[in-house]
Amino acid sequence: MINVGVLGATGAVGQRFVQLLADHPWFNLTTLTASGRSAGRRYADVVEWRLDAPFPDSFGDLVVAPTDPKALRDCDLVFSALPAEIAGDVEMACAAAGLGVCTNASSHRMDQNVPLVVPEVNPDHLGLIDLQRDRGDGGFIVTNPNCSTIIFTLALAPIAPFGLSDVRVATMQAVSGAGFAGVPAMAIYDNVIPFIGGEEEKMETETLKIMGTFDGASVTPAPLRVSASCHRVPVIDGHTMAIWADVTTPVDDVLAAYRSWTPPISGLPTQPDPVIRLFDQPNRPQPRLDRMHGRGMTVSVGRIRPGLRLIALGHNTIRGAAGASILNAELIVKNKYL
Amino acid sequence: MINVGVLGATGAVGQRFVQLLADHPWFNLTTLTASGRSAGRRYADVVEWRLDAPFPDSFGDLVVAPTDPKALRDCDLVFSALPAEIAGDVEMACAAAGLGVCTNASSHRMDQNVPLVVPEVNPDHLGLIDLQRDRGDGGFIVTNPNCSTIIFTLALAPIAPFGLSDVRVATMQAVSGAGFAGVPAMAIYDNVIPFIGGEEEKMETETLKIMGTFDGASVTPAPLRVSASCHRVPVIDGHTMAIWADVTTPVDDVLAAYRSWTPPISGLPTQPDPVIRLFDQPNRPQPRLDRMHGRGMTVSVGRIRPGLRLIALGHNTIRGAAGASILNAELIVKNKYL
Amino acid sequence: MINVGVLGATGAVGQRFVQLLADHPWFNLTTLTASGRSAGRRYADVVEWRLDAPFPDSFGDLVVAPTDPKALRDCDLVFSALPAEIAGDVEMACAAAGLGVCTNASSHRMDQNVPLVVPEVNPDHLGLIDLQRDRGDGGFIVTNPNCSTIIFTLALAPIAPFGLSDVRVATMQAVSGAGFAGVPAMAIYDNVIPFIGGEEEKMETETLKIMGTFDGASVTPAPLRVSASCHRVPVIDGHTMAIWADVTTPVDDVLAAYRSWTPPISGLPTQPDPVIRLFDQPNRPQPRLDRMHGRGMTVSVGRIRPGLRLIALGHNTIRGAAGASILNAELIVKNKYL
Amino acid sequence: MINVGVLGATGAVGQRFVQLLADHPWFNLTTLTASGRSAGRRYADVVEWRLDAPFPDSFGDLVVAPTDPKALRDCDLVFSALPAEIAGDVEMACAAAGLGVCTNASSHRMDQNVPLVVPEVNPDHLGLIDLQRDRGDGGFIVTNPNCSTIIFTLALAPIAPFGLSDVRVATMQAVSGAGFAGVPAMAIYDNVIPFIGGEEEKMETETLKIMGTFDGASVTPAPLRVSASCHRVPVIDGHTMAIWADVTTPVDDVLAAYRSWTPPISGLPTQPDPVIRLFDQPNRPQPRLDRMHGRGMTVSVGRIRPGLRLIALGHNTIRGAAGASILNAELIVKNKYL
Repeated sequence: MINVGVLGATGAVGQRFVQLLADHPWFNLTTLTASGRSAGRRYADVVEWRLDAPFPDSFGDLVVAPTDPKALRDCDLVFSALPAEIAGDVEMACAAAGLGVCTNASSHRMDQNVPLVVPEVNPDHLGLIDLQRDRGDGGFIVTNPNCSTIIFTLALAPIAPFGLSDVRVATMQAVSGAGFAGVPAMAIYDNVIPFIGGEEEKMETETLKIMGTFDGASVTPAPLRVSASCHRVPVIDGHTMAIWADVTTPVDDVLAAYRSWTPPISGLPTQPDPVIRLFDQPNRPQPRLDRMHGRGMTVSVGRIRPGLRLIALGHNTIRGAAGASILNAELIVKNKYL
Repeated sequence: MINVGVLGATGAVGQRFVQLLADHPWFNLTTLTASGRSAGRRYADVVEWRLDAPFPDSFGDLVVAPTDPKALRDCDLVFSALPAEIAGDVEMACAAAGLGVCTNASSHRMDQNVPLVVPEVNPDHLGLIDLQRDRGDGGFIVTNPNCSTIIFTLALAPIAPFGLSDVRVATMQAVSGAGFAGVPAMAIYDNVIPFIGGEEEKMETETLKIMGTFDGASVTPAPLRVSASCHRVPVIDGHTMAIWADVTTPVDDVLAAYRSWTPPISGLPTQPDPVIRLFDQPNRPQPRLDRMHGRGMTVSVGRIRPGLRLIALGHNTIRGAAGASILNAELIVKNKYL
Repeated sequence: MINVGVLGATGAVGQRFVQLLADHPWFNLTTLTASGRSAGRRYADVVEWRLDAPFPDSFGDLVVAPTDPKALRDCDLVFSALPAEIAGDVEMACAAAGLGVCTNASSHRMDQNVPLVVPEVNPDHLGLIDLQRDRGDGGFIVTNPNCSTIIFTLALAPIAPFGLSDVRVATMQAVSGAGFAGVPAMAIYDNVIPFIGGEEEKMETETLKIMGTFDGASVTPAPLRVSASCHRVPVIDGHTMAIWADVTTPVDDVLAAYRSWTPPISGLPTQPDPVIRLFDQPNRPQPRLDRMHGRGMTVSVGRIRPGLRLIALGHNTIRGAAGASILNAELIVKNKYL
Repeated sequence: MINVGVLGATGAVGQRFVQLLADHPWFNLTTLTASGRSAGRRYADVVEWRLDAPFPDSFGDLVVAPTDPKALRDCDLVFSALPAEIAGDVEMACAAAGLGVCTNASSHRMDQNVPLVVPEVNPDHLGLIDLQRDRGDGGFIVTNPNCSTIIFTLALAPIAPFGLSDVRVATMQAVSGAGFAGVPAMAIYDNVIPFIGGEEEKMETETLKIMGTFDGASVTPAPLRVSASCHRVPVIDGHTMAIWADVTTPVDDVLAAYRSWTPPISGLPTQPDPVIRLFDQPNRPQPRLDRMHGRGMTVSVGRIRPGLRLIALGHNTIRGAAGASILNAELIVKNKYL
């Protein structure tokens, strides 16, 4: 068992980390950190638990630590659920203290030596860890993409071999992506908000790095153009997206590619089976019915039509956030970076 | 004043016709028709009024007529809110009886001699009425497009001169588009349904006819490719759509085109001012805030970005249905076809 | 293992029965019935599966039988998810054919010799089965109450000893209670419907029978007055209710009664632990967060205040419907009526 | 015309005041105040307009003043939309500066000399203004009740003569009552929150003052007991409530009382006609369909049943907040307190 901690354990993503790590077969959750005013108190007393899943009582008595590398001495690896404003520095400090950091924050995603990884898409990019270790402190940072980008790149993985060059995507994103209080009911009820700050840029740049080529020294971005239009809809969990890929491959060949696709990695506890679920029904996938397949880790794909048009769906706070970081950590362990 | 009737006056679209015609300056609503079991009874007794707007009491005592040309003898023009299954034959019979028919039903939209009109986009297509009149009965049918297509073609009108050839559109459509009981709460609450039967085909074919060229004898479809992905979202009224037009015109020129665009017709009572409202704010238009501009007849456009990407929005049961038919009728009157 | 069937297995409640029986330790689900047009076809081909829970593949190949006692010959017990219009006769025919019938339908709830049972409230009423068996056919009918009444009577059980005589209850009920298509989105979105046909009467009469006294020959209704006001709210699953009980017992004694209450029965596989969950937080229970406690079988209670006011909550289609019937069946087996 | 100002004009209630005062026949809106960082800037530049109603352009160029009596010198009357934390002192300072203050804030509602008024219920309580004027500064404060209490007391007014002594009320309240960002979508979507801080206490105490007796010197609270249970539901605007009044009057007499009730005042521009709308249909009133009757000022009542049970509904931010204050101000003018 590897001792792990969660940075920012009281927030929405932090709670999800705690829930998913509660019974993890490889990771032993020993440390929960939070901001100053919560540190020193019982986790059960400071967290306002907001997941539908029940509170994992076994962590209720853990005394919350300050978000500081010194408080993480008995950890080998930490998961970061910190807000972007503070994640950048804290994660660097943790790496400098010799810790492995798997983070959901955006701060370091586009850093040259930092892997931006979806295990079933670009597991080899983890090799960037070696370049970080040249610093000599032994620590490293591994990032997962933005929630929409994870679902998007997984949905594209089986058709990437057909040669993507120009992809358009319109998202219909759930409110949980903005955090618990991020979207007021008055703002989204009976409404669509056709704008999510920074989201389109993230999809357009992160995708190129993930689908890029790692030659042992650096990642060359994929020669691809992504054009995104991102929208918030009145859905609690689950991002749905309409995708146009500019391949002219016949639909039957595309369907066959999805059916025969196997992920490049396997044997990770959090990896779902299947990784991608293909729907035949004309009106699926749908977020309320399909977001929890594979315990929230499966990405669903359907409505594959000429164009090439398709619908993709995934759970934004599990596959798109905490679950993504944990899957990265599992790959790190499997590949013996820890 | 021109005497008019409404075919199918008890349904959702029919109610909207009655509401919008209640105080119309040119049309005098004399006849409401419904299916057999309602005919012969007071309108107030058979209609289950479901609009947020109050019931127009002045029509409560009207005795509902059967949906039959004989019952429409004192009308010059009828509005059809009939379901597609029966609209086709009834509308033909009305035209054969010498009536003008403005219909929201899809049955005759693609008929060769039937105009498919959005007054601010292709008013000249009304000239097809003359070809119908060659039959000798004096009657005619004029159709308005599908709700999404109306909003879509209006939003494209100012940029059409830049030369559209390949347009993609992802819609986020309101539940009212499916009629009062069309979408169960269990189906759409906390959900997105990424499929609306026939909707993508309608947007892809009707658009070409509307934006086509009428040479006095027939309409040549526009040399344009439309690729649509249509989705239902938990919104009561108002269709939002993300559009990619393949023009390379700079955004500033596009903005200028929207600002300087003037519709080719004017002076119609139901026509809003402006016809298209352009938003500067990054997060607009939004259905709950913007669907009722111009009393539901204005189409809103925003987020014009390179790509060329933009967001369009309109009220699907007013601009996209009953209001569209009434605006067509006003143009018919103004152009002296009646 | 006892062979069981489900009558009306394709509807919303029927699907819930199938899901809950899929891995039942005592019951072996052998027969699924549906109306004529589905009979003879594979269950997977005729059911439109609408639960969030995944379809139980093991039943996909079962050939659907007609809803007829002859088709149920290898069953000892059947669960009825039939609509009230046909449940009455079919259930009588099944009982006459020697079957035990556990039904969620309302048809026989108030019949003199038919037990209306919530196992943790009035398990002794099952004794009415003996009176039915005097008919000689060996079969019997056992009913569970209306969904709201089950949650209501469970919430009252711990305070019944304080002497209830006049109870008021205002419900806020989920849309799933009306079946999949029972409530159009247009009817309930951004809305409250302050009326549910027959619901108030059911709560007011069924409660008295459940809380009544069985003397071995008949049930004497409890000397209690219930006044209900029932409302539909935009919630998918979970009925919330505000209750005023006219006891003057101090709040601390009431809390103590809830904490020390133990159900009169135990050892049933579907019975949750705890049966009633008491909340301390001022803003709980809430349907989205608390409906699934005890796999949907726990009733939650909170906000106990002078008045005596309290909030109760339960899952209407699990504890309030299919789960209730299954729990009744378990009690029947445990008490050796089968 | 009387010059008026709005204190706290940028918030949700403040915006509603501005909208409702835009074309007022008696009041000339000259001054808008806001907190320090907004003062000195154009109203259009500092307000984030969030009402469905369009922004009243005529006020866009008004320079926002600080919330300070000195800035209100050309006003005779001010409307306060301040948050409770600061309303108390600011309103006192305004009154001391000789201004009339009509406030929606709760700070002074229960002050001995401050009228708590619903014009159609207790117009005579305005007489308390004379007692405030004994201070000699000429200013005064008049308050309107909490949103739920206004709707509740109006609904009770016609039956008060039957002798109320013990009233229970369960509310289903809209999210707009908590301000624009008061209720996160994640908190209320697919949910009910059975608690609103302070709301039950307000209904239970304010009602007694409003329905109390003013003898020229003080208000004696009504000898009435109110027991409230307050709940938040996923509705944008409109509070619905289920009421039990303990009168034994036959339903027909109660219906007759509603039909024959006339408000004790008339001739105020904001007063709707009717003040109370009585519904016959079994499933009305409903918030989405009925909240805007009388431009949001009519209270709807229905489902009058033995018990005595009834449903009441009103628009919480119009009749229940800004509209209530304006109606009070109109009564003040009519009664020549200004």
